[in-house]
Amino acid sequence: MTKQDVRARILHVGAEIIHKKGFNNTGIQEILKTAEVPKGSFYFYFKNKDDFGIQLIDYFSNFFFTNFDKCLSDVNYTPTENLRRFFNTFLAFFENNDFCGGCPIGNLSQEMADINDMFRERLQEEFNRIKNKILECLKDGKERNEIPNHLDIEEVADFIINSWEGALIRMKVTKETTSLRIFDKIVFEHLLK
Amino acid sequence: MTKQDVRARILHVGAEIIHKKGFNNTGIQEILKTAEVPKGSFYFYFKNKDDFGIQLIDYFSNFFFTNFDKCLSDVNYTPTENLRRFFNTFLAFFENNDFCGGCPIGNLSQEMADINDMFRERLQEEFNRIKNKILECLKDGKERNEIPNHLDIEEVADFIINSWEGALIRMKVTKETTSLRIFDKIVFEHLLK
Repeated sequence: MTKQDVRARILHVGAEIIHKKGFNNTGIQEILKTAEVPKGSFYFYFKNKDDFGIQLIDYFSNFFFTNFDKCLSDVNYTPTENLRRFFNTFLAFFENNDFCGGCPIGNLSQEMADINDMFRERLQEEFNRIKNKILECLKDGKERNEIPNHLDIEEVADFIINSWEGALIRMKVTKETTSLRIFDKIVFEHLLK
Repeated sequence: MTKQDVRARILHVGAEIIHKKGFNNTGIQEILKTAEVPKGSFYFYFKNKDDFGIQLIDYFSNFFFTNFDKCLSDVNYTPTENLRRFFNTFLAFFENNDFCGGCPIGNLSQEMADINDMFRERLQEEFNRIKNKILECLKDGKERNEIPNHLDIEEVADFIINSWEGALIRMKVTKETTSLRIFDKIVFEHLLK
């Protein structure tokens, strides 16, 4: 493996374990054992576990935004149709993944925001980035008269990402996608109609 | 302290620490040290840490429903006004608690649902209990023509509790209550109008 491969491999394996078990509940040793990488390699790429956690947020974020951008730029659909399609791609994803995991950004927020300010600030940026992406979509939708005039789209963008996070928590508990379907219906068939 | 006091004290102190640091990130030893209770007492009341966690859910639930019932039964307000008042009581609460903690049921769900089926099932019951309480309110509101006819109140009840959970995660990240205020405005001034 090249150096870049080793770093990517640690992040990839760490992401998978932490996404399921949580950050505090996962030891570096477990990640390295699963990744089949010696301990020294870890400290070559990451100062410590917190530094690894922060780089993990970048890793999740890149993955997320690549899909987000791709989905939102499909000119065959209107802006709010693209937004709706984006959230709905997750339905199939979670159906294939035992309704586990949820959103890594939401999970880390829940777990770390109260106990680690460095994580909290980085996660706040990430939420703002997602919110702004949704907002762009709603702005485009507004220009096309897709959005009811009485709505404040800044607030709606925040509400959408927050409500989605909550729907994912409920999915983890019920192990089915009713909460995501209700999110889809109420946001796109009631609120935005 | 009487026996009942010791059990209550362990739960009270444990609730506080776990609410902030998470279940897996908190050791029994830390709880007992803070509670100033010997180890033997713990195992007199709780079979193991998981059993303690399940009893902790009851503890959170009793606290929650006592306030919920009290708030919802105030005859000076309409059903949806009472529901709105209930959620808004938390605004002041979180302002006085550094916007930390969020919802213990949501937190444990995020942390435990994927890794412990006993917790998951107990948390699922709890979510259903909250949802049914909100649904009662919406049913009463519907009888008084407070709720738009096109809404499926079963779905709205689920949507409300899920969206609230998400708003609380965002609050933990931003350390202010914008997400809760947006939840209030969009649910009670748009969706339910």
